[in-house]
Order: sequence, then C-alpha cells, then structure tokens
Amino acid sequence: MDIEARLVALETRLRSAEDQLEIIRLLNTYGPAVDSGSAEAAADLWVEDGIYDAGGVTRFTPEALIQMYNDTGHQELVHTGASHLTATPRIEVNGDTAEAVAYSFVVLRRGEEWFIMRGAINHWSLVRTNDGWRIKERFNRVLDGTPASHEVMRRGLRGAD
Amino acid sequence: MDIEARLVALETRLRSAEDQLEIIRLLNTYGPAVDSGSAEAAADLWVEDGIYDAGGVTRFTPEALIQMYNDTGHQELVHTGASHLTATPRIEVNGDTAEAVAYSFVVLRRGEEWFIMRGAINHWSLVRTNDGWRIKERFNRVLDGTPASHEVMRRGLRGAD
Amino acid sequence: MDIEARLVALETRLRSAEDQLEIIRLLNTYGPAVDSGSAEAAADLWVEDGIYDAGGVTRFTPEALIQMYNDTGHQELVHTGASHLTATPRIEVNGDTAEAVAYSFVVLRRGEEWFIMRGAINHWSLVRTNDGWRIKERFNRVLDGTPASHEVMRRGLRGAD
Repeated sequence: MDIEARLVALETRLRSAEDQLEIIRLLNTYGPAVDSGSAEAAADLWVEDGIYDAGGVTRFTPEALIQMYNDTGHQELVHTGASHLTATPRIEVNGDTAEAVAYSFVVLRRGEEWFIMRGAINHWSLVRTNDGWRIKERFNRVLDGTPASHEVMRRGLRGAD
Repeated sequence: MDIEARLVALETRLRSAEDQLEIIRLLNTYGPAVDSGSAEAAADLWVEDGIYDAGGVTRFTPEALIQMYNDTGHQELVHTGASHLTATPRIEVNGDTAEAVAYSFVVLRRGEEWFIMRGAINHWSLVRTNDGWRIKERFNRVLDGTPASHEVMRRGLRGAD
Repeated sequence: MDIEARLVALETRLRSAEDQLEIIRLLNTYGPAVDSGSAEAAADLWVEDGIYDAGGVTRFTPEALIQMYNDTGHQELVHTGASHLTATPRIEVNGDTAEAVAYSFVVLRRGEEWFIMRGAINHWSLVRTNDGWRIKERFNRVLDGTPASHEVMRRGLRGAD
C-alpha cells in the first residue's frame, strides 16, 4: 500500500476512535450537569431540535429540557444529593452519525446511604455537528421487565461484532 | 525517523487503541444481551470453547450459556427488570490477546426501587479472532471479602502502569 | 497538506486518544487495588507529593495513603466485600496535564445484598510523568446536595464541547 493510502486509512481509523472517545465524554457530561442544576449545560448536549423520550412526555430541546431541570422535583434531587449515572456505553460510529446504548441510574441520598431510585436502559442517536457530537434523540425506558424495555436493549445488539 | 517507520509506529499504536475500544464495546454488549433474554447474542461474545467460571459450575459456550440464560431463574430477572452492569474495565492489550478486570453488578427492580442483588469482580482473558475480539475465559467471583475475590482484583494490577 | 504535516497531526491526535485510554486505565486500577488491600499499588497511582482531598483530612501520598488503606476501618471493608467503583470519567487532556470528573461509589456487602454506603463526585488533576500518567490531586466530595458538591460537578463542565 502506498503512503497516501496508508495516511488516509490512518486518518479515517483515528477519527473513528476519537469519535468514540468524544461520545463517551459527551454522555458523561450529562450527570455532572443535571446533578449540579446546570440546566443549560445539560440541554446543550442535544442538537437544537433534539428529543428526550423517557416515556410519557417527549421533550424537545432546549427550552423544555431547561424547564425540566429547573422544576421542583428535579431541584429536590439536586439539593438532596443525586447522581444521574450513565454506565459505559456501547457505541457504534457510522460516519457522521452514531448510536450508543447504556444503562443509566438515578442514585439518591437517603439518610446515611444512597439508593437506586430509577434504573433505565437508553438508546442515543448522535450526530456530528460543527461544534462536535450532539444527541439527536435519547430514548429511555425504565427497567421494568416489559418488552418495550427489552426492545431498547436489543438496539444495542444491532451490528454487534 | 523515516516515513516508513513513523507509519508503522502509528499503525501499531492505533491498533492498540482500537483494540481497547472494541473490548469496551464487546464487554458492554453483555448486559443488554442477557437482560433482554437474547441468549445467543450473549453466548456469541465468547469463542466457541469459551469458559464462564462464576464459582461452582464452570460453563462452556455456547450451549451451556444459552441454556443458562434461558433457564427459569434468569428469565425471572429478565421479566422483573434487571441490569447486568459491567463497570468500566481496566484493559491491557498484548498483541492478539488481552486481559480486562472490572466489577460487575446485577441490579434488580424491587417495587419502586432497584437493589444490588450481586456484586462481583471479573477477570476476562480475551483473544483476537477473525471476527474481532472474543472472550476466552471470564472468571467471576462475588464480592464477599474472601482471599479468592481479592486474588481476582490483584490480576488487575499485573502490568500496572 | 504535505506528508510531514499529516504525520505530525496523526501523531499528536493519536497521543491524545492514547492519553485518554491510559487515564481510564489508571483510574480503574484504584478500585481493585484498595478493595484487595493492595495499599502500595493504590498509592502508586499518585505522584510522590500527590493529594487526596476527601473533605476533612487532606492526605499526601504515599505514606498517608498507605496508612489509610491499612487502617482498621478500611480493612473491615476489604474483608466484608467492597467495591470502590469509579464511574466512567469525563476526561480533558491538555498536553502534559489532564482533568477528569466522575462519580464514585463505595458498594458494600450486607447479608445477601450490597448497598451504596457512599456516593461522591470527584475531580482529578493528572500529570504525565516518565512512568506514565499519575494523579496530582483527587478532590472528592460526598453527594449531599451542598453547593460544595455541585462545584466539583461543575468543574466537569469547563471546556465542555
């Protein structure tokens, strides 16, 4: 293989590795943002018309998300001591779009301990923008044993190695 | 250093980074597979004669694993709402083999909350195949304070930076 | 762009990706070290004059850390069955220094289950040494809803993409 072809191959492969690391960074910005009440920083992780579908109400960014993170229920979590924990995601990059699947947990302080008040499975559709990777849609279902939750998990097996 | 040597160095280093990202992806495919009852997708993470040693019975893939994930006990977890969570692994790649060490937790729904029904430490021996990285052996011990569990943790310190 | 410039760009970008993977490995060495009572391996993750500030007493490595991991309280955790879990960190590399932010949890066995005895948010200042990346300071605050804990989380948003 000539030098030009090897350079192009390296550039393409490295970009895919960087994309995965950037998506890990993006998804792990969410917890510290919402748990510190930084509503705008959290909303900024989505594209302008991004979607957060956690069952029930589907919220469009950025206004609805900012409102959600500023509401009384969320503020109570913030002031009690909470972690919106995103587990290590399974990421598949396809050029300028990507998919990620991971569990997420809301861990809340109760007295001298912490407990898991919510367990969920998530599927993120991501897109490369001029400002880096952003979430286009986050689809979240609680871990309740229903076929709907299993379906989200199975999205993580598409294109499995 | 001449161009050829720099290209080879880049190719070798990039492959190691890609290997780590692929192993993270492989290990994080496990949870969504077993928690959605996708027994065959879970068994596919191992090589044909792979081993899952979780204490007591040692199971060889793929048939024994498929059977385990289809049995009544596991199906009860699937339909209650569970997360077989793999924490971020510590990975060491050595050419065509690799080792990973990580905690794992089984988080199960109970009423309106989730609890940790099993905490464990794991050591994976991995191998590069024509179809990508696969698990050769997963060695899993419950977090019970015994020397056997500490020994698995210490495998994660071999070759520590 | 000429070949020399492309090679330099690749080398610089790849080094940043490798740095992130190495920091993930470093931070995930901590749990298996302290949970197996390997006090010296844990202290080795810091530079010689490194700091672990977990509120209250600030400890300087390595002697103070080794002493902490050998004291009665920590040894009780080790022999009960514990996981000092570091969640996936948000990492920003800047040349020879880096910052990471992540939640951490101490998960302890109690009878037939495990519970979260401590939830915290962490900010690490890291430095590249001749022996690889090391922790210069780990700043840890419990998840108690106080402004001090939120401030640590917000450090993870500096330089957010």
